[in-house]
Amino acid sequence: MSTVKLISDAEASPEVAAIYSDIRKTRNSDFINNFWRALAVNPALLKHTWQHLKSIMSVEGAIDAKTREMIYIAVSTANACSYCVHSHTAAAKARGMSDEEHGELLTIISLAAQTNHLANGLQVPVDPEFLVE
Amino acid sequence: MSTVKLISDAEASPEVAAIYSDIRKTRNSDFINNFWRALAVNPALLKHTWQHLKSIMSVEGAIDAKTREMIYIAVSTANACSYCVHSHTAAAKARGMSDEEHGELLTIISLAAQTNHLANGLQVPVDPEFLVE
Amino acid sequence: MSTVKLISDAEASPEVAAIYSDIRKTRNSDFINNFWRALAVNPALLKHTWQHLKSIMSVEGAIDAKTREMIYIAVSTANACSYCVHSHTAAAKARGMSDEEHGELLTIISLAAQTNHLANGLQVPVDPEFLVE
Amino acid sequence: MSTVKLISDAEASPEVAAIYSDIRKTRNSDFINNFWRALAVNPALLKHTWQHLKSIMSVEGAIDAKTREMIYIAVSTANACSYCVHSHTAAAKARGMSDEEHGELLTIISLAAQTNHLANGLQVPVDPEFLVE
Amino acid sequence: MSTVKLISDAEASPEVAAIYSDIRKTRNSDFINNFWRALAVNPALLKHTWQHLKSIMSVEGAIDAKTREMIYIAVSTANACSYCVHSHTAAAKARGMSDEEHGELLTIISLAAQTNHLANGLQVPVDPEFLVE
Amino acid sequence: MSTVKLISDAEASPEVAAIYSDIRKTRNSDFINNFWRALAVNPALLKHTWQHLKSIMSVEGAIDAKTREMIYIAVSTANACSYCVHSHTAAAKARGMSDEEHGELLTIISLAAQTNHLANGLQVPVDPEFLVE
Repeated sequence: MSTVKLISDAEASPEVAAIYSDIRKTRNSDFINNFWRALAVNPALLKHTWQHLKSIMSVEGAIDAKTREMIYIAVSTANACSYCVHSHTAAAKARGMSDEEHGELLTIISLAAQTNHLANGLQVPVDPEFLVE
Repeated sequence: MSTVKLISDAEASPEVAAIYSDIRKTRNSDFINNFWRALAVNPALLKHTWQHLKSIMSVEGAIDAKTREMIYIAVSTANACSYCVHSHTAAAKARGMSDEEHGELLTIISLAAQTNHLANGLQVPVDPEFLVE
Repeated sequence: MSTVKLISDAEASPEVAAIYSDIRKTRNSDFINNFWRALAVNPALLKHTWQHLKSIMSVEGAIDAKTREMIYIAVSTANACSYCVHSHTAAAKARGMSDEEHGELLTIISLAAQTNHLANGLQVPVDPEFLVE
Repeated sequence: MSTVKLISDAEASPEVAAIYSDIRKTRNSDFINNFWRALAVNPALLKHTWQHLKSIMSVEGAIDAKTREMIYIAVSTANACSYCVHSHTAAAKARGMSDEEHGELLTIISLAAQTNHLANGLQVPVDPEFLVE
Repeated sequence: MSTVKLISDAEASPEVAAIYSDIRKTRNSDFINNFWRALAVNPALLKHTWQHLKSIMSVEGAIDAKTREMIYIAVSTANACSYCVHSHTAAAKARGMSDEEHGELLTIISLAAQTNHLANGLQVPVDPEFLVE
Repeated sequence: MSTVKLISDAEASPEVAAIYSDIRKTRNSDFINNFWRALAVNPALLKHTWQHLKSIMSVEGAIDAKTREMIYIAVSTANACSYCVHSHTAAAKARGMSDEEHGELLTIISLAAQTNHLANGLQVPVDPEFLVE
């Protein structure tokens, strides 16, 4: 279904195999999802994307891991990325998102979409009160 | 700048004035931002939108008020709603979003956009592991 | 503000002037809006776009002219095209869109955006009942 | 395929069953489409969304029911909501949209997308003639 | 799966058959892809769209055919058009896009999406240096 | 106008000043555009984004620098990023994009948008011929 071949473990070059290995070690799981197997067609893109994502999502910061995944779902929904909605909903659930939180998240996402379209449809000018300095 | 006239307090019909009054009371502030003044051209749309938003954003649920505003920023950014990014960034700051949290939020939003485009550009098939039942 | 120079009547090449003249004649108005003056930087693009739009919007079909402009507003809002929302709202009003219709249009646009984000956020599978054959 | 379990009639809680019953009564049909069965995972979201949509789409206003569905298709197409395009195309046909109207609708949607991208790609400034006071 | 019936050669009216014939002749291939078979439900839309696309994509201009397809992939990815990503990736490969170029294309597309969301999320004002005149 | 303060040279912390210095050296120009001055509110985000973009856009690969900027314009247009369209159109011109190429680029972008909306509006199924085994 993808526009490139998905690279299995058997087909992985040493460079790709090394990244698959780092993904497994970092996530403490044997599962490599299709996103990485598709990127592997271009080893530089795979390496670059993995290191970028790892540096952001693996480090604990001011926003906790569950909330990060919920923000990820919000952006992926608005960008109509079917794969991303599926993978990050699974990730958010794995990090403890409850059914109640999932329902509230969808409520806020859809409310935002509603008022986004109203503000864009009316071309509402930004209030001076909202401007920085 | 908007596609409709913004309705001032002086121009408000009794129906619109009643909603302006409820906005002021609910938010405990005299400020009515332009979004509502633009919607007021159609009193039914104003009433409907305000009651809908009020019922969601004014009630404390499983997701706290600051995080709700941050999710709102994420959706508004992906939908390219300039007005909404401004108003909800102001709201998130008013609810305690720190500069560090703002920076992390933008980092996650932009990372999600990056991988959204990779998954859509490669048309990665959803892994069976992500499917519900 | 645009990324190209807007071409005034005085600066128009004979090819551009001929299209400006056809726009004026077709619309029975002396006004040439900025969209065409920006496209004029590339006369082939100007000609091509004008003839394409003219062949669609100037001919009366199964959908009346006012409704066409309202559909145009809906798409332009979802695509976050500020210029297009402004120009087609003006056009819809010129073709008789009432304030009530404008309000209802915005209500439907924003409702659609809300349920679009719910369906995408939940990845709802299409019911067999909706499929053609 | 969805990110949540679809709730069958047998699995519905009394709260969900009551809404399923109202959907059936309002639409005068036994069919409950997957959108509602997915929302049912969160009964509050289901109730809220149904009442919101019902209050807008079930009431006859200035815009007739067929045209409303056609505007819905336009927004859903621009927002790349596969489920919504399918369900609202079925609904528009059920309300009398002819093949000719469907073809014209798609013509206008795609023309709007074309000029939306031109105006955004050129960053055309809004003409003063289009501004409201 | 589509919202309209796909028109086979056997079902084609003389008007549709003539366009199918022109597509085959222009492309020097017997294959008619589903996009055209779906548009054929509305012969005017089919004719119009084919002639428009043919006049642009079949003529060699300042941008070579392979690069045109790569730009097409970029837009289709951002607009979340699954069909278009598939068909234009196939077309770009047929015109010589290498795996390395495909990887770089996806890298640039995803980088652009990342910074698009940062600029929109921060509402960065355009530098005077970027303005034309 | 932005949602954060733009950081001038005088206000830059040593960490930010070091990145401003690297931007100037890499680009061989004294000009720091607003995008970086806005990101500077969060030094980690600034550093991260600059190094990411520098590693991609500063290195010559299979796609030449001018074409990369044109692909960037295509994505930015579809994502409705006003700032990005302005800055990357300026960059493409600085790398030699002619008026003719600019016109063709816009022609292809808008054609793609048109057919993206047709394919999404019709939900055209992907032809087996386009699938990668």
